Order: sequence, then C-alpha cells, then structure tokens
Amino acid sequence: MPQRDVRVVILAGGSGTRFWPASRAAWPKQLLPLTGGGPMILETAERILPLTGGWDRILVAGGKATEGATRALLPDLPRQNLLVEPAARNTAPCIAWAAAVVARANPEAILIVLPSDHHVADVAAFQRALELAIGAARGGVIATIGVRPTRPETGFGYIEVGVSDGDVVDVVRFVEKPDRARAEAFLAGGKHLWNAGMFIFRAKDMLSAVATHLPEVACALDRFDAAAREGREADALEAHFAAMPNISIDVGVMEKLDRIAVVPAEFGWSDVGSWEAAWELAPKDAHGNSVGADAMFIGADSNHVVDSSSAAGTRKKLIVLVGVSDLVVVETDEALLVIPRALAQDVRSVVERLKIERPDLL
Amino acid sequence: MPQRDVRVVILAGGSGTRFWPASRAAWPKQLLPLTGGGPMILETAERILPLTGGWDRILVAGGKATEGATRALLPDLPRQNLLVEPAARNTAPCIAWAAAVVARANPEAILIVLPSDHHVADVAAFQRALELAIGAARGGVIATIGVRPTRPETGFGYIEVGVSDGDVVDVVRFVEKPDRARAEAFLAGGKHLWNAGMFIFRAKDMLSAVATHLPEVACALDRFDAAAREGREADALEAHFAAMPNISIDVGVMEKLDRIAVVPAEFGWSDVGSWEAAWELAPKDAHGNSVGADAMFIGADSNHVVDSSSAAGTRKKLIVLVGVSDLVVVETDEALLVIPRALAQDVRSVVERLKIERPDLL
Repeated sequence: MPQRDVRVVILAGGSGTRFWPASRAAWPKQLLPLTGGGPMILETAERILPLTGGWDRILVAGGKATEGATRALLPDLPRQNLLVEPAARNTAPCIAWAAAVVARANPEAILIVLPSDHHVADVAAFQRALELAIGAARGGVIATIGVRPTRPETGFGYIEVGVSDGDVVDVVRFVEKPDRARAEAFLAGGKHLWNAGMFIFRAKDMLSAVATHLPEVACALDRFDAAAREGREADALEAHFAAMPNISIDVGVMEKLDRIAVVPAEFGWSDVGSWEAAWELAPKDAHGNSVGADAMFIGADSNHVVDSSSAAGTRKKLIVLVGVSDLVVVETDEALLVIPRALAQDVRSVVERLKIERPDLL
Repeated sequence: MPQRDVRVVILAGGSGTRFWPASRAAWPKQLLPLTGGGPMILETAERILPLTGGWDRILVAGGKATEGATRALLPDLPRQNLLVEPAARNTAPCIAWAAAVVARANPEAILIVLPSDHHVADVAAFQRALELAIGAARGGVIATIGVRPTRPETGFGYIEVGVSDGDVVDVVRFVEKPDRARAEAFLAGGKHLWNAGMFIFRAKDMLSAVATHLPEVACALDRFDAAAREGREADALEAHFAAMPNISIDVGVMEKLDRIAVVPAEFGWSDVGSWEAAWELAPKDAHGNSVGADAMFIGADSNHVVDSSSAAGTRKKLIVLVGVSDLVVVETDEALLVIPRALAQDVRSVVERLKIERPDLL
C-alpha cells in the first residue's frame, strides 16, 4: 500500500564513464537501458512507484547537462519535481536540499533516497526492505539498506553491524572500500553488509543532522528556503549551490551519526558497475550472447553486444560476430568499442586518452 | 615505352563475398581500397598505363550491377571502353568478346588480360614480365604469367612447366587447385608456377582458338560483330550473351591449346583472397595494427580495422580496440563484422546465412 507521506529522491547526478561509448557526458549511465529493460532511471522510478502512489511524490535530482534527456525519459515526472543542481557537489548537498524542499510542505514526511542507476532483481523483496526502513525512520532514526554480500567485493563501502539477522539492526560503523583480504574477512564474518547508497529518513531528521554536521550546507539551505518563499529559489541556487562543500552523505553525515538503523536485505542488487556486470544481467541466448542488438553470432559465445546508435526510424546495423568469445562490442553513432569482458574496467583508460585526444567524444 | 598496338582488358566481373561487409553485390572487391591505396581496379589500371600509353587503350569488362560505380572510380576511362556484360558467363565469353572488339580495328593488336582485384608489390618487375609476354605473343603464341610459388597454396591453380628458369618457357599443363600434399610437392619440385589469371595474345590468335575450342562462343561473336557494323551491338549482346556457355578461359581454351608460353616471374603478387591477406598488405603501426581507419588501440596488437562507411563529409566513427589481438573489424553503414584474422575465410559462412536471413545486406 502506498504511504501518502513518503517521498522518493532519485539521485541522477552521475557522470559515469564506465559505459563509454554508450554513456556520454550528456547521456550518462542512468539514462541507458543497460540491463535489457528501459532506461535505468525509469526502471528505478517504476520500481518504487507502488510505495509512493504516484509520480508527484517522486523527486529526481540531477545536473543541468542531463536535464533535457531526463525529462524526456520520465514524461510522467511533474516539471517541478526535477531538482536541477547548478553544480555537482556530491550527495550531501543534494540530499540535504531535497530534504529541505520536502520539509517546506511537511517536515514529518519520509524521504527514500535511491541511486538512479542500480539494478534490483527481486522487486518485492526490495519493497519489503524499504517498508521496514520506513518504519524505522518513522521512529526518528535515519535508516539505510544493507545488502548481504555475495562475493568479496573491493569496489563497495561496507556497513558493519552488531548482528545482521534482525529485520532492522543498528549500524556499528561505515567502512570504506576494503582491500581483498579484508573483503574476504567481511564476507566470511557475516557482520558486514554492502552500502548500497539508499537512505530513508524523516525530512526533519536529516535537516537536523545536517545542521549539526554540515553547518555550511544548513546555511545554504536557509537561503534556499527564504528565496523559495519569495518565488526566486532558482536565483539563490545559482548564487550559492556551488559554494556548498563537495562531500558525500556517507562522509558528511552518516559516519558521524550516533545511531543509524539498517535493514539487512537480499533482493538481487547490482550497482551495474561495468559492461561485464551489464552482460551478467542482460537477457542472453543459449550461447551466452546478450540479445537486444540486431546481431548474428557464428561460433561466438558469451559476448555482450550493444547497439546504442540512434538510427531513428531505420533498421539498425547488423552486428556480426564470428569465432570470438567473451567480448564487449558497443556501437554508437560516433564510436565503436571492442574490449574483452574481463577487461571491462579498462574503459576508464579509454576515457583518459579521449580527454586528451578526442574530448568531443566524451 | 608504351607499345601502340597493346590493349589491356581488365576483368571486373567479380562478385566476391570474402570481403563482406565492405564488399557488396553492387560494390565488389575490385572497387575497394583493400591494400591501403586506391580502389584495386584503379591501382590495376594505373599499374599498366605505362605499357599502353593511355586510358583509351584500356578496356574494362564487368557486369551491369557495378557499371555506375566502376565508371565513377575510373573517370578517365572512355565511356565505350567499359564492356558491360549483360550476364555473368565466367571469363571465356568475356575475354573472347573483348578480343573480337579489339580485332574489329586491328586483328594483330596485342591484348593483355588482367584480373582487376590483385595486388602487385614490384610494379617494375610486373611490367618487365608483361613485356616479355608481349614479345612471345607477337610470335603468335598465347602467353601467360606464372608466379613463382612462395608457399604450398591450395587455393590457386598451377602451371606446370618443363623448366622454370628461362625468360619465356613452355607450359606442360594447367593443374587444378591441388591438395596440401601435392601443393607441397609443387613447391619443392620447382616446376610449378601459380596461375595468376593473366593472359597475353594477339586478338586474332585468341579468336582462332575460340573458333576451334568454343564454337558456340565464336558463333555469338559473329553475331556481335555483325550487329556492331550496324551500330546495334547492344541489342545483340542482350539477345545472345547469356546463351554463351558459362566457362572459364582456363578450361574452355587454355587447357586445350597445343602450346602456351609462360613467363615465370616474381613481383610480390597477391590475389588478396581474404581479410587476412588484406591485413598483410596494409600499412601498419608499430603494433601491427593496420592504419587507415580512425582508430585507437590500447593494448591491442595485429588487428585489421576497416571503416568502409560512407560518412560523406563528416568525421568517421572512432573505432577503439582495447586488449584484443589478431581481429578483423569492419564497419560499414549497414553492418559491423568482428572476426579473428585466422578465421577470415569464414566470412563465407556469414554470407551463406545472410542469403537466407538478410539478403538485403549482400
């Protein structure tokens, strides 16, 4: 059942480069249909809609460069519900601003903050976890979701808990990305969960925490509130948003709180961090080749072929792979990438070279 | 020095499929710049120009489907010098027709018949070999060029000779494509040369041989000659060309002659039979990657990247290969092919599937 005072804030400020050439500065990861469905941001919104009861209760926060594309992909999102950040200042200023916006109408309202570019396989389990977190947040605590780890991942932050098998448990501490040995110990020990970047709280509780731990941000929020009362918030944002500290919500707020509740959960979560992860989640044929592009495979196994070219109204290019395996092949209007799946992280090195040689392609 | 009575006939009737997707039914191999220079047919013509003294002494024989493209790529070729075959009937009818056309003005004229889609590295040596063959042809013998084999190739026909070290020697027999063991014996024995499909003869000698060994063809030629005298050869070609036997000059004429002269030669000849061969001949960077496409290589060696897309007037697509080696990557407007160089012959299997699934792409 939708809860009328729940608001969702989808964080869409990412400028990820790991999905180049499909992802571009003006068309980042969250706008791509990476896992075989719709654009990730649309899937994120649709996944949470049943808990909110309507698009009017969803806010999306993102940058100017992606404003047009985001509106185009989310036609049901009310215009004023897109919070356009004048500058990228990481998650703390952005979430604090969203809390302030919601609090103007109802300081008791519950906010669910979600990344826009993650995948969830078991939507029912995801929604159950959020409902538990909402319950905790109603009690005045800032809550988060901790995903039970399935591998010794070194690319995520962890949440250490005292016990991990209750519906809602207390956070002992947030832990930065570990090295391999520590990650393996975390996996074996059973007291560490993945920090999936989801936060659930009453607007007023976040604003209170921000006032305590990020006073410069709280000061800016006061300016925004005052300007909003006079109908000129946009001017205040232009003038003061960029002056806020560039800091994550984890470092700026969460790690400093005395108490955080966490809902340990499993719902087939993935941050879809590379083309390799996208292949894992994509629908595939009997030979492990992803389907979706107009492709032909002859003696070719376990390849990930993506056609992200526009070709509006026309048939897309036929992509033919013969005798190659475990490759990622990404076609766009302006670039073609061929890279082994196992090296998918090296897309970063491509982007580094493009910054020097072909910045027009970023 | 150009010899005024020499005419060149460039055979451009190929409909090769081994260079798909760059080669198409309407844009076959000879029209492609496969080895890093101009279109192969243009390189063929320019290679022979010094022996003839002018474009007016070059004839090109090809099909209707490629007429427009061929004229566009050979702007200096006089309009009437493109012999358009109403139907593909292999090389014998085509060469016989060309000999008849030349003989109308001068039966003593020397014809040099050359494939349009082969590569020659040492043009001076190639021209010297042809001059020797012209000398033999002036004596009334049909001559050919025999390329000294450098590997036990099973994809070519061979020419057996009694001795192979004279300037001009006699052919013992033509030999069909051998199996591997015979090809190795040919290579070791020193008495076999590759049949490179080049023939040199007086027009009247070829017409005489055709009259003897291919009387149906000779009969058709009489019709064409008669019609030409009345200025309506095109009608006669439409009416009778397709009725000629579909037979190669090797089988239809050469193998039946009592005497053929051959010039054993070495001039870096290649039939450019696959993407692998094209890579071998293409200019390459220090890592063995072919240059020519707008490409970026990161930890990628010995790849052959071809951009055959039109992108007229605009910058071409950036093709980025990371951590892959020994691949062929061919981009066109309508298709993309990725195949290991070592499997380049398997392009045929792609074409077989396209005949059923996507004939529009052939």
